[in-house]
Amino acid sequence: MLILGIDPGVAITGYGIVRLDGDVLHSIAYGVITTPSHLALPLRLQRLYQNLLQLIDTHHPTEASVEELFFARNARTALSVGHARGVILLALTHAGLPTYEYTPLQVKQTITGYGLASKEQMQEMVRLLLGLEEIPQPDDAADALAVAICHAHSFSTALRIAQSGQDMENHP
Amino acid sequence: MLILGIDPGVAITGYGIVRLDGDVLHSIAYGVITTPSHLALPLRLQRLYQNLLQLIDTHHPTEASVEELFFARNARTALSVGHARGVILLALTHAGLPTYEYTPLQVKQTITGYGLASKEQMQEMVRLLLGLEEIPQPDDAADALAVAICHAHSFSTALRIAQSGQDMENHP
Repeated sequence: MLILGIDPGVAITGYGIVRLDGDVLHSIAYGVITTPSHLALPLRLQRLYQNLLQLIDTHHPTEASVEELFFARNARTALSVGHARGVILLALTHAGLPTYEYTPLQVKQTITGYGLASKEQMQEMVRLLLGLEEIPQPDDAADALAVAICHAHSFSTALRIAQSGQDMENHP
Repeated sequence: MLILGIDPGVAITGYGIVRLDGDVLHSIAYGVITTPSHLALPLRLQRLYQNLLQLIDTHHPTEASVEELFFARNARTALSVGHARGVILLALTHAGLPTYEYTPLQVKQTITGYGLASKEQMQEMVRLLLGLEEIPQPDDAADALAVAICHAHSFSTALRIAQSGQDMENHP
């Protein structure tokens, strides 16, 4: 299972690709897609769309996990993140990737066990869970890895529940 | 000059196509693109993207005019409109259409001459300017026609300014 995690933004979109082997997570790739501010918005969105499709073509992830935005400082920020999320969700659909969405709170709770963890604690947990020597940089890439890990964890929990249900059927 | 005006939304996107012949405006087509709420967001965005490309393929507009959102009731609304605007701007770029954006205030001022006009006054002006018997329905289609008219007016004003500059050069 190869998961592409995404932290959306027009200027900078973080991505992180993790592989789940049994219960073990590996970091495959991470980084950011940036678009230059001197370009018109439609061209920036096209750049983001194309670069994301290239990334999928290179790594062949099997599913995608995208950060949902519940709270924004203001409507202007929400509109801008919406532009990026719109083309990202479209690119994932065009690539045929099953896509899941997680709120920042769900990601925090999954990674650190509670919802009040600081950004630094989150990043340190991402480093530990992936067995990395350094905290992934920049922040957007670390956030994207966190969203991917969140989905991997939800998947393996769902699998465990299904398996224990099967065990109960076999040994009532 | 054939202008495609768009009033963006995930559930319902209004469109209106107007032709500018000299100083005269004609309504060519108008309506809405809707996406069913039972579909997942990525599939709704794909539906919107595809239907918009089909519309462009049918009518071959030469430029596009999209309503910009400056104020939203809340960040949630702005995020949702952003999703729609993102895929719309991408589709217009993929179709090679030069795209212009106008705020609701710019549209109101252009159509009615002042920024405090009511929705009903706006719609009546759209009807008059296009020589239609009835006010275009639904509201989203009328709003999209207004955005198209706004661009047509900006264009013909720019043209008049350029021509009068030329006249002055020829007859100083």
